[in-house]
Amino acid sequence: MRVGVIGGGQLARMLLEDASRLGIEATILAEHADDGAAKEASRVLLGAATDEAALRRLAHEVDVITLDHELVDLEMLGELEASGVIIRPSPHALRCAVDKIEMRTELGKASLPMPAYGIITTSDPTDVAPLGERLGWPLVIKAARGGYDGRGVFVVDDAKRAQAVVDELHAAGIDVLVEEKVAIDQELAALVVRRPGGQSASWPAVETAQVGGVCREVLVPGSLDGSLAAQAEALAVTIAELLGVVGILAVELFVTNGRLVINELAMRPHNSGHWTQDGSVTSQFENHLRAVLDLPLGSTRLTADHVASVNVFGSDDVSDFDHALADSLVIPDAKLHLYGKSPRPGRKLGHVNVAGADGPTVRRHAWMAALALGTPMPPEMEEL
Amino acid sequence: MRVGVIGGGQLARMLLEDASRLGIEATILAEHADDGAAKEASRVLLGAATDEAALRRLAHEVDVITLDHELVDLEMLGELEASGVIIRPSPHALRCAVDKIEMRTELGKASLPMPAYGIITTSDPTDVAPLGERLGWPLVIKAARGGYDGRGVFVVDDAKRAQAVVDELHAAGIDVLVEEKVAIDQELAALVVRRPGGQSASWPAVETAQVGGVCREVLVPGSLDGSLAAQAEALAVTIAELLGVVGILAVELFVTNGRLVINELAMRPHNSGHWTQDGSVTSQFENHLRAVLDLPLGSTRLTADHVASVNVFGSDDVSDFDHALADSLVIPDAKLHLYGKSPRPGRKLGHVNVAGADGPTVRRHAWMAALALGTPMPPEMEEL
Repeated sequence: MRVGVIGGGQLARMLLEDASRLGIEATILAEHADDGAAKEASRVLLGAATDEAALRRLAHEVDVITLDHELVDLEMLGELEASGVIIRPSPHALRCAVDKIEMRTELGKASLPMPAYGIITTSDPTDVAPLGERLGWPLVIKAARGGYDGRGVFVVDDAKRAQAVVDELHAAGIDVLVEEKVAIDQELAALVVRRPGGQSASWPAVETAQVGGVCREVLVPGSLDGSLAAQAEALAVTIAELLGVVGILAVELFVTNGRLVINELAMRPHNSGHWTQDGSVTSQFENHLRAVLDLPLGSTRLTADHVASVNVFGSDDVSDFDHALADSLVIPDAKLHLYGKSPRPGRKLGHVNVAGADGPTVRRHAWMAALALGTPMPPEMEEL
Repeated sequence: MRVGVIGGGQLARMLLEDASRLGIEATILAEHADDGAAKEASRVLLGAATDEAALRRLAHEVDVITLDHELVDLEMLGELEASGVIIRPSPHALRCAVDKIEMRTELGKASLPMPAYGIITTSDPTDVAPLGERLGWPLVIKAARGGYDGRGVFVVDDAKRAQAVVDELHAAGIDVLVEEKVAIDQELAALVVRRPGGQSASWPAVETAQVGGVCREVLVPGSLDGSLAAQAEALAVTIAELLGVVGILAVELFVTNGRLVINELAMRPHNSGHWTQDGSVTSQFENHLRAVLDLPLGSTRLTADHVASVNVFGSDDVSDFDHALADSLVIPDAKLHLYGKSPRPGRKLGHVNVAGADGPTVRRHAWMAALALGTPMPPEMEEL
């Protein structure tokens, strides 16, 4: 069985590790030869995710195409699909992961819980002020496409600044989603995987901690309320079914005033699901491969009561990364996942998973290993 | 950090999976481009394990060299080491894994428990009959070098047949080890990993089932007596220290009349340790990499009470392996590890691990997945 992956980042790299184990031949379409996955893959095509000739070469070599990121040309993928190439998730489903306006519109039709929002497209560039009055200040302005890790998201306090942001995005040809700024009591994520025929499997919802829009840690189950966690899991299954997702669907949610609202969707293995590599019978990467190949899904059962996953970022504190790696491995139950990137301050280099019987212990061990690798602990985060 | 691996088989392939995860760059010296590891590796040198020029090219590209098999030229490796190349395990230690006479001699000096044995070298080709009288019939005759998976081992009933086997091996230039045939009540294996400085870590000893010299299943803890298991683990640590092993040491043992005797040694990840991939915090592959790179060792704690590992063999029953794979994945807790080999009857294609709370259940699930892939269940084995 042969899978093609659009994108050569760390998600593709981790897909490769599980593909090798299952005897699945994965081919990577990477933009650069030194992308994380391209460095490790034996089958690499060089080309952009939006390079039609490269996509056709990839399609020629594999049975199914999947994705490592959403920075794709949906129309181009739609044409490929129309010509008989199997793309999973389909461009139709993918639309709601690529474009936040599509996502809000589709989920809104199903009356799923979301922040109040408005849309300002380049083709109908209405003033933002009335929306601000309706949704309240401060206002959250999001680029409909192209943002990730907090990029493309702006929190603005008044109509003048809001209009400037909208105008700037419009000038770049980008439609704008405008949302109420909900009071975030807690952030969580729900992960589900779905096969073409509709079979799906969920992992337990997890508590996530973002700083500046960037995920720093994931705790399973963390301090999540069981009932809210169950609601989040059910929402993820509903959305996967509603949109016809094939593969992994990650749903990021907020808890606000005791209720859930949906923040974002991703239709690929997601940072909030990296804990599954060491805390669940089947990782999100393996189940993504199984789903896009229409193979039976693996068990999503937890292998420990508590799992912590902490992202590793580069910093100026580390001059010798090999030495830091040795320091990090002193924590005997820390499972390191490094992406083969050269360390630079602020760059996400990997993550550390720890699974065990005690929540505070696994969190502490995961952070100890991440700190040893130079990861700065943000002052905003709860003390260890 | 860069590791070179001599040999491109499945062990190298599984080392690659963990190397990728740790951000370690592994280079494979493979004899053929379609060897299991060579097909997946991004850094491959083609050449035989006994090709000095190839070994020097490998040494030039990496920080340390390790091995996927023992079919090496010890003298050549010794010369490489003398010229400054770091080889782990060292050729000095490796001698006792490459050559069964060296192994018996070294372990004998330390009075470790072994079958009674004698040696007949090509340079002193004494008759086998007196040895047969001393050790009793039937007699086990082993090629000192080059055997694996039951190859190079002969059980003979009388002096005439014994002499014919010895003469044949001598004619091929191979020294001969002659051993008493012990009554095997049970077979087990102990796995330890050791760093250059002497730090070591053990996994629990496991029960193994061989048919015709080929490992078919591994059960953790299986029906092993706790005291014998503990003795086996202690013996493995003793041997690793005695021989100065760096990396994984696997010790295969027999239980005979209530006591242990040492059968064989391997100084690399071993079939009897594949269960660690899904039943232990750190797999034998990851800890082998850590040890040869002189990094702190990972926890060898079990993640479940019971683990079963069943080898997958090709058979004529399977005409469409992809279809068989789908059938096999119906068992949701089965962890498949396939080596990327094209299926042929009798060929080892992979293994299945299952970890869980109940011994009979995990064994049954592992066999169900292996059977679905076409693995014949030998009539000699205990019913599921």
